[in-house]
Amino acid sequence: MKTNQCKGKVFLVGAGPGDPELLTVRAHKLLQSADVVLHDALVSPEVLALLPLGAERIAVGKRIGDKVDQTDRQLRINELLARHARAGRCVVRLKAGDPFMFGRGIEEVRALAAVGAPCEVVPGITAGIAAAELCRIPLTERYRNTSALFCTGQTADYSLSHFSAVIELMKAGTPLVMYMGFEQLDRIVERFIESGLSPDLPACAVSRVSRNDQALVSGTLGTITQQLRESELPLPVVFIIGEYAVPEGAHNRDQTDPSDQNHSFNQHDQAS
Amino acid sequence: MKTNQCKGKVFLVGAGPGDPELLTVRAHKLLQSADVVLHDALVSPEVLALLPLGAERIAVGKRIGDKVDQTDRQLRINELLARHARAGRCVVRLKAGDPFMFGRGIEEVRALAAVGAPCEVVPGITAGIAAAELCRIPLTERYRNTSALFCTGQTADYSLSHFSAVIELMKAGTPLVMYMGFEQLDRIVERFIESGLSPDLPACAVSRVSRNDQALVSGTLGTITQQLRESELPLPVVFIIGEYAVPEGAHNRDQTDPSDQNHSFNQHDQAS
Repeated sequence: MKTNQCKGKVFLVGAGPGDPELLTVRAHKLLQSADVVLHDALVSPEVLALLPLGAERIAVGKRIGDKVDQTDRQLRINELLARHARAGRCVVRLKAGDPFMFGRGIEEVRALAAVGAPCEVVPGITAGIAAAELCRIPLTERYRNTSALFCTGQTADYSLSHFSAVIELMKAGTPLVMYMGFEQLDRIVERFIESGLSPDLPACAVSRVSRNDQALVSGTLGTITQQLRESELPLPVVFIIGEYAVPEGAHNRDQTDPSDQNHSFNQHDQAS
Repeated sequence: MKTNQCKGKVFLVGAGPGDPELLTVRAHKLLQSADVVLHDALVSPEVLALLPLGAERIAVGKRIGDKVDQTDRQLRINELLARHARAGRCVVRLKAGDPFMFGRGIEEVRALAAVGAPCEVVPGITAGIAAAELCRIPLTERYRNTSALFCTGQTADYSLSHFSAVIELMKAGTPLVMYMGFEQLDRIVERFIESGLSPDLPACAVSRVSRNDQALVSGTLGTITQQLRESELPLPVVFIIGEYAVPEGAHNRDQTDPSDQNHSFNQHDQAS
């Protein structure tokens, strides 16, 4: 991609879950040619470290206690994006994970289209899928479940019929991948169990997916809230709840050596 | 990542939807240091072109008419992966999209763990999310829908209660992102409409997501099968069906210039 194609344009870019190696090649290039970057609070410091020295960096994410109205914040972001593009700059709007998976990407696409600002969306690795992979939690599986439901922690506020449908899917083996549910978890779990899901249903929480301090808490619907209280996981946390959503083997990116299992690779080699 | 850390190890790598710039940085590096690559039929030629000259390339994907039993095929792949890792090679198992989203990644993780072979999973951009972004089809949206359901075209074979749950979610605004549903679409659409979904429900098909010949067909549940017959889209195709799943603005990656709209960016600039 030539740098001059970037000028006077906004790129809504998925930053992935945190590890800079999980950026796309395109996102990586765009960051390096950015004049200005507007980023969420959850974009990792390691990703921001890739910005060139001369790039302007603007934190536009929600901060605990900042009391800014969400609609006002979004309007301000839209205005900033358009203003910088209008000034002929290469504008990267960097969103943790993927812009269209709970990232409000479509709102910014619309706002930019309304003022005629050129805009391109660059997908990113969404935290829920990365969490499954890095912790080896099955999401879809032949002969078991052929769907996966992604939701936000606002699930608890669904209408009754909507909520029943979620539970019906989960009973049929579909895993629920839940973002931003940390604060509501007590209430959501209570409602799930009241609605007929088993307290023994497997439930995992993955904190800081793909980062150096990634942590997995694996339990059940009945135990996960107490486990989380005890573990004091740092945010963000992604939940994966489902009949078959049980982690297999290595849980951290560095635990890829199976020598802690009963057989090692070389032993098998000799035996076969 | 140092090359010697790759030796004697299998990497299950998501190749993304096709555009090599949508590979992750990590996948890109691994491909360049691979000794042997086993790839699916849907991995794009542009991605395979990144392999070093000396790398062995093995196509292990299903080909139309090859009549190989799916279980036999998987066993053979598992055996090949383990054999090459055992020989001390850097083995990349390259899967279109993401290994855990309808990619059978967990089966290979288990098979490798069972023989004690070191293995690491590298997430990739899944085609359904990329399709939404590149065609600007809202997936999740504040105040509208807070969940998205991903499934395979085998949806049509769900149990009745499971199928009812899918429909209930769709009626509540949740989009259905469907992979591998091309051959079954007639039957699936028929069943959806029989089960109470409106023939006017928006339905999109995105062919060859992120590739140079990406194409979007946008219609409704009632029209999409006829539109597909007429358009003869090449595979693979991803479907996005849902009340709010209506494409906005640019549909191709290169159509990022809004000058074909009623206002241009500069006109707005002068007017404001």
